[in-house]
This record gives sequence, C-alpha cells and structure tokens, in this order.
Amino acid sequence: MARWTFYTARGTCALATHIALLEAGADFDVVALDFIKQQQQSPEYLAINPKGRVPALRTPLGVLTETPALLAYVAQIFPERRLAPLDDAFAMARMQELHSYLASTVHVAHAHKRRGARWADDAAAHEAMRAKVPQNMTACAKLMQTWLQPGPWVMGERYSVADAYLFTITGWLEADGVDMAAFPLLRAHHERMLQRPAVQQAVTVSG
Amino acid sequence: MARWTFYTARGTCALATHIALLEAGADFDVVALDFIKQQQQSPEYLAINPKGRVPALRTPLGVLTETPALLAYVAQIFPERRLAPLDDAFAMARMQELHSYLASTVHVAHAHKRRGARWADDAAAHEAMRAKVPQNMTACAKLMQTWLQPGPWVMGERYSVADAYLFTITGWLEADGVDMAAFPLLRAHHERMLQRPAVQQAVTVSG
Repeated sequence: MARWTFYTARGTCALATHIALLEAGADFDVVALDFIKQQQQSPEYLAINPKGRVPALRTPLGVLTETPALLAYVAQIFPERRLAPLDDAFAMARMQELHSYLASTVHVAHAHKRRGARWADDAAAHEAMRAKVPQNMTACAKLMQTWLQPGPWVMGERYSVADAYLFTITGWLEADGVDMAAFPLLRAHHERMLQRPAVQQAVTVSG
Repeated sequence: MARWTFYTARGTCALATHIALLEAGADFDVVALDFIKQQQQSPEYLAINPKGRVPALRTPLGVLTETPALLAYVAQIFPERRLAPLDDAFAMARMQELHSYLASTVHVAHAHKRRGARWADDAAAHEAMRAKVPQNMTACAKLMQTWLQPGPWVMGERYSVADAYLFTITGWLEADGVDMAAFPLLRAHHERMLQRPAVQQAVTVSG
C-alpha cells in the first residue's frame, strides 16, 4: 500500500485516529499542525482539507476527514488487526452509534468552551456557553460510562477503535470541569489505554 | 427478519433514516412521537432511547440510534438494494465522512436556532446563537453543494443513503435564512428526491 499522510494537532480529536493508525500498523507520515500559529488555516492546508480542521488522512485515493469515518476506514483496511467487529453488522452499527454520539454531542459540548465563536459573535454569549460546559460534559460522561459495563473495553472483551475515541474524549473531561471521582470506570479505562504502546506514542504528538 | 420499530418525529433528521428504510424495503412499524407534547421525554420512550431523541430503531438485537450509524446499517442489512458503496472501502469512508459532517457540523449549526438551551442558560446567548444561524448554514450549504458535482447523486451516478440525509438537511436551509437562489444544485437535488415514492411517503410522517 502506498504511504499515507496523517494531519494532526495537539489536544485535538485527531488523537483517536492517530492511535488507530498505530494500532493498525499503517505505514504513514505524520504532519503536526500548530493551531497556535493557525497553520490549519494556511492556504497549503486548506487545499488538503478545506474545512481547516484535523484529522485528515491523505491517501492515494483522496483525502478523508471526520473521526468516525476515519476510525471505521482504518479498521476496515487492516482487518487482520481486528480493530472493529467487521463481521457483525449490528455490533459495527453499535460502534458507529457511539462514534457518532462522541462526534456530534460530546465533542460539540466540549467545543462550546473555547470555540463559542463558531456559533455566536457576542462575547457574553461565549461566556454563557463556557459556563454550561461542566454540566453538559458531566451528562455526557454519565452516558459514556455505561458503555464500559461490562467492559473492559467499549465493545466488551475486544479492544476496538472506539476505545481510542473514548480515551481521547475522556482526556478532556477534567479540564472541562467534570468531577472524575464520579466516573471510576472512565478513569480505569483511561489508565488501561495508557498502558498501550500505540497510545503512549500517539500522545507525544497528538495528546 | 423480525419486524423493526422505527421511532421518528416531524421535522427532524429522522426523516433521513425513514427514507432509507423505505428504499431498503425493510419490514418496520413506525411510531411518530409528538415533540410538541414532549413525548420524547416520556418514561416509556426514555426506556427505549435514554437520549430522548429521534431517530431510534428497535431491532431484535437491540435499539440503535444516531443517523450516520442507522444509515450505514440499513444499507448493509439490505445489500441487494445497493444503498451504499458496500464493496468499495474508500467510497464507503467518503459516504461516512459526509454523514459525519452533516451530523456534527451542519445539524449542530441548525440546532443553534431553536435548541440554544442545550449549550447556554441565558436568553441573550440564545438570541446571539440564532443570529448566526444563517451565516453558518450558508457556509455549510456551500460545502454541501460541492458534493453534487458531478452528481446527479451525492456519491455520483448511484443513489445512496447519503442522498436521503442531504435531502433532509437541505430542507432546513430556507427556514434557516439561507438564500437558496445561490444553491441551484442543492435545489435540483431536492426536487429530484421529491420524485421518489419513498421520499413522498416518508415526508408525510417525518417531514
């Protein structure tokens, strides 16, 4: 397979795909964008991903974006790594359901802390959004924690790309004002993930 | 296959899955919730979908939620209907990328018009969010319209569940303050969809 290029940035949800690529044993180059320097808005990067976001994966077939799509794709391209329940349509749909919730509810709730300018121009509105983040992220954490019963992984006995995504977002909870003492299963999952070499490697760049 | 139960409500993104189920020829019952009566928050419904949202699909294997997961699942369970590029991993990832963008960017931008209470408690903040909806939805429409080149469908020559999702969200644009005269390809796609019997049937319940 021709080499891929993976575009990431520190402290973003690209960490999930970064972990998945390493667990898959994919052959890829990493380009780490500096969001402080607004490199995601450079003409060069916008030519790759017009949305000006990460993650993005450049492949010989084209550029792919959006974490749920990338996680499922990586799992599918490397079936021998068994990173998703590829042979079980219902389990696969469940995994995608969790990915979709993380992307469109949890990540969005988190983004209202620092990215309020996406949805309002008024500074007082941004402050009002920030004020609600701990409450919303705590509600999300309650639901996410149910995914770890019985555990030890999101999809049960078998590790999957969903664990990389849950790990990534769980890492945001404390700074978002969530009392992690109330979520021992999420904390234990986070610690379990940190034992994995792929996770340790990915966080040095995307964490 | 045992009969499924599909939970929907008028004017919601559940329309996309409703269309997909009809196009697939699935055997399913429809339960239409009345959001004005807050039926999605009833104890009976929360036992089915604790998130209190639609769509939800009850199957013998369990309940599935989240539009991107449901669309891919329906396409996969009825492969003979060819509602997704199931044999082409990259094209499938592209379809999922578009679904993910519709769910986590476009639907979220739209929700800031009436659902601002999700992200702030302050009425002035809700007003500030509402004010930015036309601008954000116009930016989304610009990107969505690029998906229809060359067309005629989102995935090119072949119709897919992505068309049902794009149709659903395109239907929100005008009321969200988007000048549809600027988006002839989206309008033409919308009209093309309205020719399909499944779409005509779904909109009587979920439109």
